[in-house]
Amino acid sequence: MTPALEDLFAVLRFPSISTDSNHAADVRACANWYVAKFQSMGLAVELCETAKHPIVVAKNEPVAGRKTVLIYGHYDVQPVDPLELWDSEPFNPVIKDGKIWARGSTDNKGQHMAHLLGVEETLLEEGELPVNLIFLLEGEEEIGSPNLPGFLEERKEELACDIIAVSDTGMVAPGVPTLGYGLRGITCCEVKVTGPDKDLHSGVYGGAVANPATAAAQLIASLHDSEGRVAVAGFYDEVEDLADWEREMWSQVPGMDRQDVLEVTGSPDLFGEQGYSSAERLWGRPTCEVNGMWGGYQGEGSKTVLPAEAGFKLSCRLVPDQDPVVVLERVRKHLEAHTPIGVQIEFEAGHSGKAYVADPHSEEGKAAQAALEEVFGKAPVLIREGGSIPIIQDMKEILGADTLMLGLALPDCQIHSPNENFTVENFEAGIRLSRVLLKKLGTSS
Amino acid sequence: MTPALEDLFAVLRFPSISTDSNHAADVRACANWYVAKFQSMGLAVELCETAKHPIVVAKNEPVAGRKTVLIYGHYDVQPVDPLELWDSEPFNPVIKDGKIWARGSTDNKGQHMAHLLGVEETLLEEGELPVNLIFLLEGEEEIGSPNLPGFLEERKEELACDIIAVSDTGMVAPGVPTLGYGLRGITCCEVKVTGPDKDLHSGVYGGAVANPATAAAQLIASLHDSEGRVAVAGFYDEVEDLADWEREMWSQVPGMDRQDVLEVTGSPDLFGEQGYSSAERLWGRPTCEVNGMWGGYQGEGSKTVLPAEAGFKLSCRLVPDQDPVVVLERVRKHLEAHTPIGVQIEFEAGHSGKAYVADPHSEEGKAAQAALEEVFGKAPVLIREGGSIPIIQDMKEILGADTLMLGLALPDCQIHSPNENFTVENFEAGIRLSRVLLKKLGTSS
Repeated sequence: MTPALEDLFAVLRFPSISTDSNHAADVRACANWYVAKFQSMGLAVELCETAKHPIVVAKNEPVAGRKTVLIYGHYDVQPVDPLELWDSEPFNPVIKDGKIWARGSTDNKGQHMAHLLGVEETLLEEGELPVNLIFLLEGEEEIGSPNLPGFLEERKEELACDIIAVSDTGMVAPGVPTLGYGLRGITCCEVKVTGPDKDLHSGVYGGAVANPATAAAQLIASLHDSEGRVAVAGFYDEVEDLADWEREMWSQVPGMDRQDVLEVTGSPDLFGEQGYSSAERLWGRPTCEVNGMWGGYQGEGSKTVLPAEAGFKLSCRLVPDQDPVVVLERVRKHLEAHTPIGVQIEFEAGHSGKAYVADPHSEEGKAAQAALEEVFGKAPVLIREGGSIPIIQDMKEILGADTLMLGLALPDCQIHSPNENFTVENFEAGIRLSRVLLKKLGTSS
Repeated sequence: MTPALEDLFAVLRFPSISTDSNHAADVRACANWYVAKFQSMGLAVELCETAKHPIVVAKNEPVAGRKTVLIYGHYDVQPVDPLELWDSEPFNPVIKDGKIWARGSTDNKGQHMAHLLGVEETLLEEGELPVNLIFLLEGEEEIGSPNLPGFLEERKEELACDIIAVSDTGMVAPGVPTLGYGLRGITCCEVKVTGPDKDLHSGVYGGAVANPATAAAQLIASLHDSEGRVAVAGFYDEVEDLADWEREMWSQVPGMDRQDVLEVTGSPDLFGEQGYSSAERLWGRPTCEVNGMWGGYQGEGSKTVLPAEAGFKLSCRLVPDQDPVVVLERVRKHLEAHTPIGVQIEFEAGHSGKAYVADPHSEEGKAAQAALEEVFGKAPVLIREGGSIPIIQDMKEILGADTLMLGLALPDCQIHSPNENFTVENFEAGIRLSRVLLKKLGTSS
């Protein structure tokens, strides 16, 4: 086994499950491993306490005039249940079929360890790095990074940087280098629909009073027109058209064709806004989705009840220039205006986060593209993602720097599920990528 | 205590809970009490075995040329949980504030015991009855009368009758004699809406595939127009207009005004088909109600899932001339025609029963009206009910006889709940009613 794999295996053996307080000591032990490793590499390292799990920050000796690059990663992992579905022990990594099998192998230990080891190789071979480097590894990503924004705020001068590199996203397909430059934002709410003050007999009272379940369904149905467009007034007001180059680029991205999306989702058909491809619908257009709904009797057989209340949860995915607070207020007004006679609604706002987008054709973007092309032998695809990674937006707002999302995860890597895995090939490519990236960022203007 | 109340207390002490197999012996013991009682009254009595709880049939010696009247009742009762909410023991009847407090006091021991004791009084005073009488008491009403239709079928000649009297419904208000002459029917179904073959991340996939929860809501919403009318094609095809006398009669029924319905339901407003009063909406118009719906995440907080499936349960209440099978098929076709792109539906039919209606101005209806007026001192209101009592329709179809629904239950009698009660006043009025009713039926042409 190579020394690089030995280092990765060492960190994979820590059950650093951040959500489980029984594993708090394991999380800390894992952080300490990184402290020792960064020290051995000759970097200045600090174990920074937070209200919960520590953040590890490591730096080289800054040189004036050089570009400052911050590499972000997280050393905490998801829980492993159900354990019986794992083919090998989640915290005893093994290599099989060219893949490293362990919890955290892809998300995120394998991906940030590639960067760390690329830096180590460069230091060993060159004696110095081509950039001023800040490594930031947190231990709370899987619980929503509750302490990271405060930490960034507190240390914003010390962590000031020109560009951020994160490998915590995916490659669209094996062998297809992928640069992510955007994420959708989000805004959530929960709506309770109330009618009678108790469940009623649907025979005795059905027909004379409104049914809150029917009303909730009518409210949900009012959110879209028949062609899948969100019917909330003003919902699209700030939405910018996609650039021609983006539509052209996304049309080339493998894995996003009709058949691909049908297969990966297992859906009987595609459905979405008219006039947009699946990639455009997912990465470049906002949505309003029901995440849950309920009302009345859900058990076996029938119970002829007219329920006293019903409810639903919504989340809107947002694109750049949409303000989550403004959009949520429009949704609230829409729901109030569409509330049927005979029921009342209670609206509760949930969490929100802005969309993120950067220019992949900036100097740093071009450097990242060139590095990906050099390592993988072909030009990368430039994509956004449909999900939300709030910390990317946090780092943009607090540190003022854009993020290069250099995804190394493959579609079948099983993150958050049993049998998480990371290919040895991508791990080793990641080490090379990190070396080339820093070199190209160091010489970019 | 009067001998009448002593008899009622005796049967109320049997915990004849039909749904609980631990009480099977209590149910049987209660049936045996009736056997002995009918014998003591000089009636021919039979304890008829069924697959579960026995049916008690008692008759006088039939006289040719006389009208045959069947009085139906049930001696089984609902469970008593939650016991801690009872102010007195459910099977240890007490009289307080003019009411008899016990499980079964109203539903149905008190109501049919009034008939039994009326018959006993007449026999004691007159030596004979003015009609050929069949008493039929079953022990399975609270579990849906599974063995009654088969029993009626098997004994249809022996149980042939001209009219049936049942006191198992309500008076619209204290002191307001009430003759019920109709019930709504019912037809039920459950619909499952499926899309992706697993729950999806609503960020990663939201916008490109249909959301089954949204689709389920759209299906539910499609069932009504904005004015509360059922939008299923053909739904009202067989629905007859209400007769002028019915609309006039129902407009006089106490307890059905706007304020009354708002109070009893606790609803913020009334809502229903335009052009109909609450009474008409409840008793004379069909409905399509959601009894339950579900999909996705229903727990606390948010989970940004695009659910693989959603579903809902419907029940339609039917009026005379609507065939449950035909109506349900129209609902199925409507749902299939309205299924949005990108999802599939599975439709499962549930139980069904036809609506029941009789002419309250028939000879027997007029006799019942006269009896009610004589006993309560004012003309009865003539109503239908919104719920369904399948056995009434079963008796109509198998025995060919209509039912007079002579409700003695009051709105606050708490049937099926803790603190069930029956007023001594209505119990004693019921005894007189039974006497007068049989006399008037006996002399009706």
